[in-house]
Amino acid sequence: MDETGLIRRDANSAPLTPLAFLARTALVFPEKTAVLHGPHSATWGEVDLEVRRVAAGLRVRGLGAGDVVAVLAPNTPGFVTLNFAIPMAGAVMLTLNTRLDAGTLRYCLEHSEARLVFCDRELLPRLGEALAGMASPPQVVRIDDALAPEADGPADHAFADFIHDAPLTQAPIDDGWASFSLSYTSGTTGRPKGVVTSHLGTATNAISNALDWAMPHFPVYLWTLPMFHCNGWCFPYTIAMLGGVNVCLRAVSAQAIADAFAHHGITHFCGAPIVMQMAIEGAQAAGFVADPPVRMMVAAAPPPASVIARADSVGIDVTHVYGLTEVYGPCVVSAWKPEWNALSPAERARLKARQGVTYTLQEGLSVRDPETMAETPRDGETIGEIMLRGNIVMKGYLKDEAATEAAFRGGWFHTGDLAVRHPDGYVEIKDRAKDIIISGGENISSIEIEDALYAHPAVAGAAVVAMPHDKWGETPCAFVELVIGASCDEAALIAWCRERLAGYKMPRRVVFEPLPKTSTGKVQKFALRQRARALADTR
Amino acid sequence: MDETGLIRRDANSAPLTPLAFLARTALVFPEKTAVLHGPHSATWGEVDLEVRRVAAGLRVRGLGAGDVVAVLAPNTPGFVTLNFAIPMAGAVMLTLNTRLDAGTLRYCLEHSEARLVFCDRELLPRLGEALAGMASPPQVVRIDDALAPEADGPADHAFADFIHDAPLTQAPIDDGWASFSLSYTSGTTGRPKGVVTSHLGTATNAISNALDWAMPHFPVYLWTLPMFHCNGWCFPYTIAMLGGVNVCLRAVSAQAIADAFAHHGITHFCGAPIVMQMAIEGAQAAGFVADPPVRMMVAAAPPPASVIARADSVGIDVTHVYGLTEVYGPCVVSAWKPEWNALSPAERARLKARQGVTYTLQEGLSVRDPETMAETPRDGETIGEIMLRGNIVMKGYLKDEAATEAAFRGGWFHTGDLAVRHPDGYVEIKDRAKDIIISGGENISSIEIEDALYAHPAVAGAAVVAMPHDKWGETPCAFVELVIGASCDEAALIAWCRERLAGYKMPRRVVFEPLPKTSTGKVQKFALRQRARALADTR
Repeated sequence: MDETGLIRRDANSAPLTPLAFLARTALVFPEKTAVLHGPHSATWGEVDLEVRRVAAGLRVRGLGAGDVVAVLAPNTPGFVTLNFAIPMAGAVMLTLNTRLDAGTLRYCLEHSEARLVFCDRELLPRLGEALAGMASPPQVVRIDDALAPEADGPADHAFADFIHDAPLTQAPIDDGWASFSLSYTSGTTGRPKGVVTSHLGTATNAISNALDWAMPHFPVYLWTLPMFHCNGWCFPYTIAMLGGVNVCLRAVSAQAIADAFAHHGITHFCGAPIVMQMAIEGAQAAGFVADPPVRMMVAAAPPPASVIARADSVGIDVTHVYGLTEVYGPCVVSAWKPEWNALSPAERARLKARQGVTYTLQEGLSVRDPETMAETPRDGETIGEIMLRGNIVMKGYLKDEAATEAAFRGGWFHTGDLAVRHPDGYVEIKDRAKDIIISGGENISSIEIEDALYAHPAVAGAAVVAMPHDKWGETPCAFVELVIGASCDEAALIAWCRERLAGYKMPRRVVFEPLPKTSTGKVQKFALRQRARALADTR
Repeated sequence: MDETGLIRRDANSAPLTPLAFLARTALVFPEKTAVLHGPHSATWGEVDLEVRRVAAGLRVRGLGAGDVVAVLAPNTPGFVTLNFAIPMAGAVMLTLNTRLDAGTLRYCLEHSEARLVFCDRELLPRLGEALAGMASPPQVVRIDDALAPEADGPADHAFADFIHDAPLTQAPIDDGWASFSLSYTSGTTGRPKGVVTSHLGTATNAISNALDWAMPHFPVYLWTLPMFHCNGWCFPYTIAMLGGVNVCLRAVSAQAIADAFAHHGITHFCGAPIVMQMAIEGAQAAGFVADPPVRMMVAAAPPPASVIARADSVGIDVTHVYGLTEVYGPCVVSAWKPEWNALSPAERARLKARQGVTYTLQEGLSVRDPETMAETPRDGETIGEIMLRGNIVMKGYLKDEAATEAAFRGGWFHTGDLAVRHPDGYVEIKDRAKDIIISGGENISSIEIEDALYAHPAVAGAAVVAMPHDKWGETPCAFVELVIGASCDEAALIAWCRERLAGYKMPRRVVFEPLPKTSTGKVQKFALRQRARALADTR
């Protein structure tokens, strides 16, 4: 076919960017509520105006394309604004985990060469510590959230003075591949790595959130998930696209969730299993049953059957998702089939616990041998590494070409998670690559042993790592936290496991002690592996 | 920020193509019903396999990138397959209007240099006429639809023999800008123009259909809209993306729609106002009220309040959309606000009759002076031309650079439709650019006069065009079809208009005769303008 004249032009080609979602919603639904925060609220028209004024404030100070601008804040209206204002100025948004210690904050700011930090008033003292002695510290803009406690610390500007009265009227983005944000991985080992995302990828994931969750127009979204986690899994942009409400929360608690359910008609929220626990407890304490159900996306660990049943009982409908910072948060969903509703609770939980299939707009999900890149068979048994490809994959790691090339070798992003693929195409994680235990040549999934331990009524937390062994190479070593008031001993738990696991998977030791965790709540298995090495010498 | 190594790669970049929707649904939901056609059905796994076999059939015959492959068929399972198989082979799909005469069919096939036509058995005789005497006629593949009447005509292959047993396993598309389909405009004046679309644009519009209609997973979609109209407004791809059911219909009738409502649990359908009329009549005759409501997208003419009320009464929830072939079908939607449900029926109809705002993923909608390109004020009064830009705009017209450049001048696609923009940002069409009547320097909207005429109980159809006038330049001339059994005369209708319109907008003549229509049901105003010129000489 003759393609003469059939070229890309301004009229028929536009970069995909989440900034377009705000522009459309501000045009079509300017009067609708965009943000609720305690007694405070703002419409989409107001948010849009503030976004453009903050973007103008950055631009008049010479900050734009190529600059990194950071945010250190809880889930507040200021953060909602900054999620749009920083990329609208053309800058790259660095979102900092509010739980990081001053040293790690400083590392992230120095490594990224951030030129400015928007910081919640409450977090200024910690930021001050991080900046102390830096050769060229970033400017600081203090966010005076209405619900923040008083606190002191260094700031060059107050938010209200920083904004510029003549709002920016146009985004300077001309390519969807332009860098959008920067998030440092929590780093269970070594230094955090800076994950760089694009406008295109952020928009694509934001759209997929809506498609894969079949979200209605005008959702009421409760911010239990930190916005600093992979840009809140791109939900700030999903909610803008759908003209929804961002219900902010400075701190997550059972009481706060229950209050939001009761007063704001929450329709959707996201988080780790601990958030689900809080939501259930809060609703139960308040005697509240959501009808129609509130929908929750849960990631990080598959919810057990008993927890799903409890969620059902208070009207929380759980969708299980999987992802990493490198893939914009979740981009794999345990897609639910209506016919599964007829199955037993245990069977439903087993199906829901699988990580599942790609998001609608992610190109590929595969389980492969990381050496040969061969796909594993769909037998539910052969373990390989989960790999992803498509527009919902990061641009790469900032200033770390070696790590970027390693992550992308063979044309796929290597997640480091080990999984099987079931005959129906759904994947199920068996372990982190570095957490697998190899005993006598057999791969042992630490998660499988942890699941067996979790099933014991006295166990509140469990983590299993490899312990060196002269004969077998490695054997499993379990670390366990007990439920408050419960008691149990090593022999009893090993006997419990013996009823449930193959002999070679038995933990050789069970240690009762608190589990060390990262700032995002992940168990620090590298610390436990050091403990296990020390313990191996004693037996 | 240092962008070293942050490049596009196979792992983090993929062309946007609707073929990916089929691949994902065939993987995740292979057992779900994809197509229903009378007593026949197929699953997504079966459709995917057939698609890849037809694509392989094209490829083994040397048809692929750069080739045009046509389809001439009603809404049948074969067409569902071809919507994917032709682009999967890398070819461009030409969809032909089944109502075209042999001469126009021949023009489209010759102009596009189509190499092969898939033709429904019933339409073979007309295709035979079109091909007779062509210097290098395309090959013909006969689609033997199970519900097609017997008919004879030339065919080189039967569909069942054409497919290749070794299915294509990979799409050869490597760029979202690759040409996807070709549709000829119905051409109210002059020769039809060939509108070329891209994979990227088709996928973007398919996604927007789901977002703007807030569609659930697994919709049951009734094919009342012809698939040959802008690729069925991209709904074949929306339905694939959502794992839905395509309920096929060879011919649309009130009875057929009512049957589908009753037996298949239809959730969504689309069409012109005549389809809405049929659906209402069918449901009323069957005493059927859809609960929950069936959702309908209606385009081409705003539904009056009385019709919306009748639709409501049988459980049809109407969404009004606007578009053209050049923008993939609808890409403008009269986005509904829940608070409007509290308004009076007349007020609701007035709001719903507006064309509205951009689809979520279309970049821009504007009303501008086509000469200066200045935007018109949002006053609900100043008339300008509707212009669109973004990924949901065609690549251009095939082998017609002059028309392509003209359509895209000033960086926007010029629709030729004249509209006002209301203070709330919603646009409302006042006329086609070439249908506006300029009388004594005043613009008169032919649609406004037609609306006044339609309000008369005896009027079944009305079209108003410009009639030359010595003093005023032009004056309105009305052509009217009466309701069967009703009677009315010119003086009565002019008096009727006088109560409703400004004096200068009065039709100077009212002519009672059948309205000439194009193959897609549009009134041929160019023919009426010729009639009006002749009539002007007589008074």
